[in-house]
Amino acid sequence: MNSFLDACRALIGAAHVLHQAADMAPFLRDWRGRFTGSALAVLRPGSVDEVAALVRACAAARVPIVPQGGNTGLVLGSVPDATGTAVVLSLARLNRVRSVDAVNRTMTVDAGCILQQVQEVAAAHGCLFPLSLAAEGSCTIGGNLSTNAGGTAVLRYGNARELCLGLEVVTPQGEVWPGLSALRKDNTGYDLRDLFIGAEGTLGIITGAVLKLYPQPKAAITALVALATPGHALRLLSLLQDRAGASLTGFELMSAFCLRLVAHHFPQLPRPFGQEYPQYALVELSSSESEPHAVALLEQAIGAALEQEVALDAVVAGSVAQSRGLWQLREHIPLAQAAAGKNIKHDISLPVSRIADFIASTAPLLQQAFPGCQLVCFGHLGDGNLHFNVAPPAGIGDEAFLVNQEAVNRVVHDSVARHGGSISAEHGIGALKRDELARYKHPVALQLMRAIKAALDPHNLMNPGKIL
Amino acid sequence: MNSFLDACRALIGAAHVLHQAADMAPFLRDWRGRFTGSALAVLRPGSVDEVAALVRACAAARVPIVPQGGNTGLVLGSVPDATGTAVVLSLARLNRVRSVDAVNRTMTVDAGCILQQVQEVAAAHGCLFPLSLAAEGSCTIGGNLSTNAGGTAVLRYGNARELCLGLEVVTPQGEVWPGLSALRKDNTGYDLRDLFIGAEGTLGIITGAVLKLYPQPKAAITALVALATPGHALRLLSLLQDRAGASLTGFELMSAFCLRLVAHHFPQLPRPFGQEYPQYALVELSSSESEPHAVALLEQAIGAALEQEVALDAVVAGSVAQSRGLWQLREHIPLAQAAAGKNIKHDISLPVSRIADFIASTAPLLQQAFPGCQLVCFGHLGDGNLHFNVAPPAGIGDEAFLVNQEAVNRVVHDSVARHGGSISAEHGIGALKRDELARYKHPVALQLMRAIKAALDPHNLMNPGKIL
Repeated sequence: MNSFLDACRALIGAAHVLHQAADMAPFLRDWRGRFTGSALAVLRPGSVDEVAALVRACAAARVPIVPQGGNTGLVLGSVPDATGTAVVLSLARLNRVRSVDAVNRTMTVDAGCILQQVQEVAAAHGCLFPLSLAAEGSCTIGGNLSTNAGGTAVLRYGNARELCLGLEVVTPQGEVWPGLSALRKDNTGYDLRDLFIGAEGTLGIITGAVLKLYPQPKAAITALVALATPGHALRLLSLLQDRAGASLTGFELMSAFCLRLVAHHFPQLPRPFGQEYPQYALVELSSSESEPHAVALLEQAIGAALEQEVALDAVVAGSVAQSRGLWQLREHIPLAQAAAGKNIKHDISLPVSRIADFIASTAPLLQQAFPGCQLVCFGHLGDGNLHFNVAPPAGIGDEAFLVNQEAVNRVVHDSVARHGGSISAEHGIGALKRDELARYKHPVALQLMRAIKAALDPHNLMNPGKIL
Repeated sequence: MNSFLDACRALIGAAHVLHQAADMAPFLRDWRGRFTGSALAVLRPGSVDEVAALVRACAAARVPIVPQGGNTGLVLGSVPDATGTAVVLSLARLNRVRSVDAVNRTMTVDAGCILQQVQEVAAAHGCLFPLSLAAEGSCTIGGNLSTNAGGTAVLRYGNARELCLGLEVVTPQGEVWPGLSALRKDNTGYDLRDLFIGAEGTLGIITGAVLKLYPQPKAAITALVALATPGHALRLLSLLQDRAGASLTGFELMSAFCLRLVAHHFPQLPRPFGQEYPQYALVELSSSESEPHAVALLEQAIGAALEQEVALDAVVAGSVAQSRGLWQLREHIPLAQAAAGKNIKHDISLPVSRIADFIASTAPLLQQAFPGCQLVCFGHLGDGNLHFNVAPPAGIGDEAFLVNQEAVNRVVHDSVARHGGSISAEHGIGALKRDELARYKHPVALQLMRAIKAALDPHNLMNPGKIL
């Protein structure tokens, strides 16, 4: 192995081949701090050619590679296992915005660019890069693409997949596919781009991408709407889609329990209503015309929802600034959860039309199996994506409850499967959900995936043990 | 072979195994009538299980399969070659709309449903299925997905790929992958859906799909805008995107020569301007609010374009009905071309920002090589997609000019490659552009495609000779 590491040093410089435990530590520990793996070394190439050369060296020596971006994933997809046989290949030094084309509304970036950097450069060119998620200050665009990240703007703009036109990829053989197409229509053979997107680094290493940009809306205005049930939230969603079309840019569901958690842990935040309601929707309309247009459109729609008794009560922000305040309620749910202690998380999706049924039928099953457990149910209702987290009953400690993780997953994921849903909406599979995938994915799909993996990476060197 | 055909008859009934020349003829001739292939038989299964059983029978007998929908393709993708060794497997009898979910805004359909039928069922449920193209009365949704069809609504809604959430596919081994997910977020492994979409039947047979529906806009209003150059069209596009965002649902470029052809062959159509201008854009804005809102928004934007001297002149339709009239000018270009005689067609795409450069640099190269040739340049500018067709010089017969096809392709496609474009924007590759693909696609991409093909279809039985 010394000769292998020497070869790596010769390729990218000794300073970029980390092998001391202290230097490697941040690359080996997962974002939630629940697992720490082991590695031969952490490699930090500075160019696409260096990535390709390292992959060839790894292929020759049969050393497995764990590609890593910002290492903010939640499913152990970007950290190595405990065997210490793999290298971590960090894309962090590939962090240039290569070009921006404001007329084509595209930008070409290195995989290691931080998401927030991408958003800011787009904005400086008068454009919007809509991908937005909690880790945006740390995660990289390469990681976003490798996991097909979701976030808060999917309803209008789609997942990371829909925001990418072209990719540059280093194959498991260490060849470079320069697929940096900036085209909106291109039907020249198989969709290699979308095969690498969401493959979590198991088929090759994304080193660059062409991203789609959008015109900046003139204003985004939110309302907080009080609702009797999740079913009413579905009716509100349909009403807003019919009246606002693509101007509806956000629709988040939050249960009373979620806002109670936020109020308890963040008492400084606004409490828009004088009383508690069973459910809330945070909705956002964007206008390409003006702030008053957005406010008027939203007020009319919410007025209709109140009149038709779809909504119980509502607060419409009068300005973009007030809208930010309402978003904070939603954004503080994960923080309030963390302050309250650990819980068992699920990142699930369902057909939007089945969400109310899913919640109504799954909550009692959980109560039956784990009496007193507390459901922290919120998420991107417009995309069918719920964060359906289960916290311990009052008075039970986190650790005592977490031993139920497997059993809780079974109740939730079996119900997801019955409702035509997915066990991973936006976090991916990684190592954490690999067994769950094997349980719930159709055998023909698994067989197709294995055939593709074997064809492109016959020695199973690219992020082994993830997904499959 | 008799025992193979007997096996097919036993599986789907003798009436659905066509083998007389007259019965097979429409399945063997391509849409443009330029090629007629040969086949062992035409198989017309009536269910997914029958498709799977036939594929297993073909696999056992090593009989190649050419899947076929409406057979409206333009690149010889859905007809067999001349050897007579393959069967055509028609999906036409799989033509049920399985279900519509207006709340989830999805519909689940058999692959053999006619596109127009899909549009109409969506409309009957108050929804829009936006895919729209000239062949919509004959083409099937399975064919649309297998070729990742484009059309006139791509600017706002994307290609067929973006309009599909889930697929049901029969694999080359005759197994059924029931991937009819109706989810907007699902990160559970490789993107098999998008691998089959656009694969032109070379990796398996799409038998069913879950399609995305959208709210029906309240009104779509068009304007015809006269412009000095394609560069001004790009400025107009940016201006409209900034002012209208997702409300901009169409942006078509047409040269003066195109509208002159239409005026000559269809004198009954409107001629909105008293004089001729070098270029025209047909633009469409849709409003989720009202017809007056759409008209006002478009009038303001066009007013700004005239004031900023982006546009030379413009006619804004005052109603949805007037808008239909303007669309007819665009829709009659292909018909006027056909009436004028044959030409050499190109279905190319470019980064939007490079279109003006492409036209300005390619037209003189064509004139140099083929003096007097006439360029019929129109297309979906908003998507970067041009139909860049080359007609004979005045006085030269079609057939005499068509011998130049290879040389004309070389001039156009070499220029496309220099401008970062694609030789197939929306028609696909089929058998017609297979050699062009081998010439222009990057070798690493071709190698990845071949590896995937060999992994999924090791005996090369699925639509052999297409794409690769």
